[in-house]
Amino acid sequence: MSSTYGDKIKISVFGESHGNGIGVVIDGLPAGEKIDMEQVLVQMARRAPGRDKTATPRKESDLPRVLSGMLGDVLTGAPLAAVIENTNTRSGDYGNLLDCPRPGHSDYTAFVRYGGCNDVRGGGHFSGRITAPIVFAGAVCRQLLEKQGIRIAAHIASIGSVSDLRFDPVSVGGDLIERLSASPFALIDEGARDAMRAEIEAARLDLDSVGGTIECAVTGLPAGIGEPMFDGVEGAVAKAVFAIPAIKGVEFGAGFELARMRGSQSNDPFRFSDGRVTTETNNCGGILGGITDGMPLIFRAAVKPTPSIARTQRTVNLRTGENAELEIKGRHDPCIVPRAVPVVEAAAATALINLMK
Amino acid sequence: MSSTYGDKIKISVFGESHGNGIGVVIDGLPAGEKIDMEQVLVQMARRAPGRDKTATPRKESDLPRVLSGMLGDVLTGAPLAAVIENTNTRSGDYGNLLDCPRPGHSDYTAFVRYGGCNDVRGGGHFSGRITAPIVFAGAVCRQLLEKQGIRIAAHIASIGSVSDLRFDPVSVGGDLIERLSASPFALIDEGARDAMRAEIEAARLDLDSVGGTIECAVTGLPAGIGEPMFDGVEGAVAKAVFAIPAIKGVEFGAGFELARMRGSQSNDPFRFSDGRVTTETNNCGGILGGITDGMPLIFRAAVKPTPSIARTQRTVNLRTGENAELEIKGRHDPCIVPRAVPVVEAAAATALINLMK
Amino acid sequence: MSSTYGDKIKISVFGESHGNGIGVVIDGLPAGEKIDMEQVLVQMARRAPGRDKTATPRKESDLPRVLSGMLGDVLTGAPLAAVIENTNTRSGDYGNLLDCPRPGHSDYTAFVRYGGCNDVRGGGHFSGRITAPIVFAGAVCRQLLEKQGIRIAAHIASIGSVSDLRFDPVSVGGDLIERLSASPFALIDEGARDAMRAEIEAARLDLDSVGGTIECAVTGLPAGIGEPMFDGVEGAVAKAVFAIPAIKGVEFGAGFELARMRGSQSNDPFRFSDGRVTTETNNCGGILGGITDGMPLIFRAAVKPTPSIARTQRTVNLRTGENAELEIKGRHDPCIVPRAVPVVEAAAATALINLMK
Amino acid sequence: MSSTYGDKIKISVFGESHGNGIGVVIDGLPAGEKIDMEQVLVQMARRAPGRDKTATPRKESDLPRVLSGMLGDVLTGAPLAAVIENTNTRSGDYGNLLDCPRPGHSDYTAFVRYGGCNDVRGGGHFSGRITAPIVFAGAVCRQLLEKQGIRIAAHIASIGSVSDLRFDPVSVGGDLIERLSASPFALIDEGARDAMRAEIEAARLDLDSVGGTIECAVTGLPAGIGEPMFDGVEGAVAKAVFAIPAIKGVEFGAGFELARMRGSQSNDPFRFSDGRVTTETNNCGGILGGITDGMPLIFRAAVKPTPSIARTQRTVNLRTGENAELEIKGRHDPCIVPRAVPVVEAAAATALINLMK
Repeated sequence: MSSTYGDKIKISVFGESHGNGIGVVIDGLPAGEKIDMEQVLVQMARRAPGRDKTATPRKESDLPRVLSGMLGDVLTGAPLAAVIENTNTRSGDYGNLLDCPRPGHSDYTAFVRYGGCNDVRGGGHFSGRITAPIVFAGAVCRQLLEKQGIRIAAHIASIGSVSDLRFDPVSVGGDLIERLSASPFALIDEGARDAMRAEIEAARLDLDSVGGTIECAVTGLPAGIGEPMFDGVEGAVAKAVFAIPAIKGVEFGAGFELARMRGSQSNDPFRFSDGRVTTETNNCGGILGGITDGMPLIFRAAVKPTPSIARTQRTVNLRTGENAELEIKGRHDPCIVPRAVPVVEAAAATALINLMK
Repeated sequence: MSSTYGDKIKISVFGESHGNGIGVVIDGLPAGEKIDMEQVLVQMARRAPGRDKTATPRKESDLPRVLSGMLGDVLTGAPLAAVIENTNTRSGDYGNLLDCPRPGHSDYTAFVRYGGCNDVRGGGHFSGRITAPIVFAGAVCRQLLEKQGIRIAAHIASIGSVSDLRFDPVSVGGDLIERLSASPFALIDEGARDAMRAEIEAARLDLDSVGGTIECAVTGLPAGIGEPMFDGVEGAVAKAVFAIPAIKGVEFGAGFELARMRGSQSNDPFRFSDGRVTTETNNCGGILGGITDGMPLIFRAAVKPTPSIARTQRTVNLRTGENAELEIKGRHDPCIVPRAVPVVEAAAATALINLMK
Repeated sequence: MSSTYGDKIKISVFGESHGNGIGVVIDGLPAGEKIDMEQVLVQMARRAPGRDKTATPRKESDLPRVLSGMLGDVLTGAPLAAVIENTNTRSGDYGNLLDCPRPGHSDYTAFVRYGGCNDVRGGGHFSGRITAPIVFAGAVCRQLLEKQGIRIAAHIASIGSVSDLRFDPVSVGGDLIERLSASPFALIDEGARDAMRAEIEAARLDLDSVGGTIECAVTGLPAGIGEPMFDGVEGAVAKAVFAIPAIKGVEFGAGFELARMRGSQSNDPFRFSDGRVTTETNNCGGILGGITDGMPLIFRAAVKPTPSIARTQRTVNLRTGENAELEIKGRHDPCIVPRAVPVVEAAAATALINLMK
Repeated sequence: MSSTYGDKIKISVFGESHGNGIGVVIDGLPAGEKIDMEQVLVQMARRAPGRDKTATPRKESDLPRVLSGMLGDVLTGAPLAAVIENTNTRSGDYGNLLDCPRPGHSDYTAFVRYGGCNDVRGGGHFSGRITAPIVFAGAVCRQLLEKQGIRIAAHIASIGSVSDLRFDPVSVGGDLIERLSASPFALIDEGARDAMRAEIEAARLDLDSVGGTIECAVTGLPAGIGEPMFDGVEGAVAKAVFAIPAIKGVEFGAGFELARMRGSQSNDPFRFSDGRVTTETNNCGGILGGITDGMPLIFRAAVKPTPSIARTQRTVNLRTGENAELEIKGRHDPCIVPRAVPVVEAAAATALINLMK
């Protein structure tokens, strides 16, 4: 199992949904940098579950506790370790039973991979809860990037058939970035909110779930970041973003639309603008040859519908070796796209900080 | 610059378009395995340029020469090094001039990244020619995978507005895999060939180029390969595929279509089939939680149009600091999609062999 | 800062002497293996400070708490995270003052490396206390190795001028291994104990400290483990052992004595013994060409005297820029060699498990 | 097999003694730096075999050929690949017979590791010849270090019972560094040469070989290079140096002598000298807590006697399963210490450049 990312700033994520705690160790952070822990909590609150997020941004129990790497609010250079205690653990209940794997979940593949020994309670290490440490790590990394003028924001590009506007890839505004990067339901066009919520509610009433897309922009990246081939920006960001459960596609700039274009349309003409090299369009998403060109980095990620649905589903019974039907109990989020927005931003931050000089 | 991939089987690619030679070192291959070098050359011929590929599968000058790692046709366990000599080098011509970067190319970003010291002749290390060593490495890796019953094939899913059929994601046939994986213009539906060639020819006549998509299938993968989070199959494959110049999007299974689906549609029901766990559909592309489920691995990649087009384009003159116009001389391939097919397969092979136990 | 080790089983150590806690994340452990936590605590007790170790093997406060990666006593395959709370932390006291670096300590080099922002209290991340998580990780890894018949034990080879016997490099006995690997003052010849304790006591009475050597043996290693060149057994073990503070030399087999030998003396003749290839002598320490030969792996490490001594020492005042004198207050261990023995074993276990197939 | 080193500047060495060629790929070098290829050849000549090295510094056949990564004499930023053709290859002779492994050689361990499929001719990938690419890589890296004022030199500290002087660890002179780093038989005290040559000649006449030690100094390293724990300077240098065949021990500063010292002797007092922090002694070898302190880095390596000796030796016959006697034919170097000196320097350069910021 590799829950480790990065060559320069190494992120090691740990935890299982019903274990004693989850957390992250971040090795390689620069000593002396000040971290605003309130801003870290803002990011974690965006990902946290809860009925009305704007009202109560966090439950005390979800607060990360820093064990090392900071003195007051300053990084010491030692590995930064943060732990979030799990409060819903029930000791003694070690019956690790998995008869019927949930379709669309990792239940079956984890069963094969770990010989049935993985902790299946609440999804174990595959739980969406394990993205909380990623958001913590990303929230630290993004503050370091911000000191270099680099800003990251994502928004809900679509939920089911309802779409938000897209970023203007040539000029993503700072105000927009600021607004989105603190929003629990991030939209460029706030007018899309109601239709999106209706889409989610309709899925819920159908005992179903719904997918969507997330679009992310990174501004302020200087030209010249990244490498050709295997350490290109696309590959580094994609690897980090695909680490998020439910992500099944990543595209940069015009992405899959480029496949239907002519070169005369897709090539972004260079122009001097205020003595700086810019491009008139940004179909390449700010990356040429794996290296940033100084324009905004733009990518989109496809989020599959939450696999936990209330409807009866066909599955297998691994114990009896027979086909079976499964009804998943409990309340489940019919759409994880809004909560995945800060996770995508965090993944981008984690990837980019490892490419900076 | 990092032209290195892999933790277990380490691939180190080198070379510049007009240098003395290009090649690859593959460290970590298992001793004692027999490699069919003719099959390696078949793969390299699929990628090689040339008017009529079926007629003359290779020019002698493009033959890779193995320097170490093989004794006869057997791997020795030492790093496998292969070199392809460049025969178009002109010594003495070290004028490394780049005034006007080509739109859509890495000229500008490489100029910034390497302070103007990179070899710009023919694109240098960013040249499509540097994918030849990737195909060599992939051709070796895929033979090792084949011994475990794992087969890889890709096809031209679309060029411009013309599409091929898609793989049946539940049952990709062995005959189809065999036919595609040796074809220089790989199509499921051979009937699409003429329309695709017309699309390419139309672009050429317009002094333009055209993009497309490539779909890849991997069969015979056992369930349980891959890791959650950062070493998931999606991330590993995406990182390798994004290393190929011109790839701007990667999606697995139903990919971006999942974003518009309900969970009841996208979840793949499990069923026993011949005593084996299978899924009735394969929207997840054979991967759940980053781990293979034993169904075919399916992904698609978006290829942008070749940036080298004959039309006059707007760019900047980095020397004079003024806007400029650029006309690119010489013959250029108006569509690289067919030649990129074996490169995508090679990238998949390179990624997967690093995930195998 | 890189407190991370390993490609296959990745160890990430964190913590500072006076922070909230120290610990380790171990990523890549095999699911389903049973871990005897009592045996882990035995190893940690050997390293722990304390007047009479044989009497009270541990203080409750030093108990590691497993946050994830185990269900009951079985590894789940998820990263194994363990935390030891620090109970001697004093909140509010963030005055990170370092005027006069202690000679022989990392005070000065850490000051330069981290720009004066590292946590200097108690040595911070450089504290010997941070070897506790290494012992935890090693104690888990050695149990996995033991299931393959591989046993690790080290002993105090010398303290000052007093030496223990050396391992018989050809036939290290299982009883000896068992006895040493649980001993808090590990000696082959128990008769050397009094003289060694006298050597330590003499140093203490002189307000001084004393160094020593540790010899380690690993038995049961099959032939064929390791790689030539950069992943050879010597390099892997040395890298892990040099991570322990105070280690300044590592030698394998006859080590530096080989430099005075003739080849006819140093070459270990091969012989069949019970149908198995063995060597008559073991000057190579069980390693040829970076690869194990099936004989015991033998190495020795040099431990410098504890730098914290009560005598007045010459140093500099970094604040005033003047030469200064320093008197270190408090009780300090005049010899850390006995407590370093289990840390050396742990480092060996950590290195070797990463080389196993 | 891992013949790959480094996170930042990645070195990938390939080749077998009797294959088509040996070489190295160096990935991550900074673009724009000028490399003096004559100086690279000086280093390679020091390692090369030959009766009278001062007379003919190289045979044409051993010249490395740069395939990529340089334009004229300037690094392009692309991976630097260099190949040395093997001219002693005999095609067709693929009989890979190994009946009787040579004592002290990797024959037996490689046989087990690679299942008998490794190329045994001339030692294959384990041949001392494969250190030539290491010297090439080190020669490039040392030039980059020299531009930062960092100089590396080693000398023959001893051969058998004959010793050279040791470096003054506090003030290693620039003239001495310069003289040693170009010498084919590097000695501080040239007066030791005759006695050393006599020691070697005596071994040769006895049909035997002899070992020795090499001492290496690195000057001009700023304080603050390296990391605590696993990426400490000691571990990084040791890992690189142990990659050299025949090295069996590495010690830093006073090394194993520290084990017999008191803290009051071994601690190096800090003093201001010309406004700079220095130490009065340098028993720590310029490294505290894994981090450089600005004093010369000093280490010594133990070289075992060449295992190839003309005397009859006891071994086993792996084919017949019986004990056997072995007589090694051909001329062999009775002492490799002089030729190993530049290899040790190269290993140090390779390790250090990966630690620089």
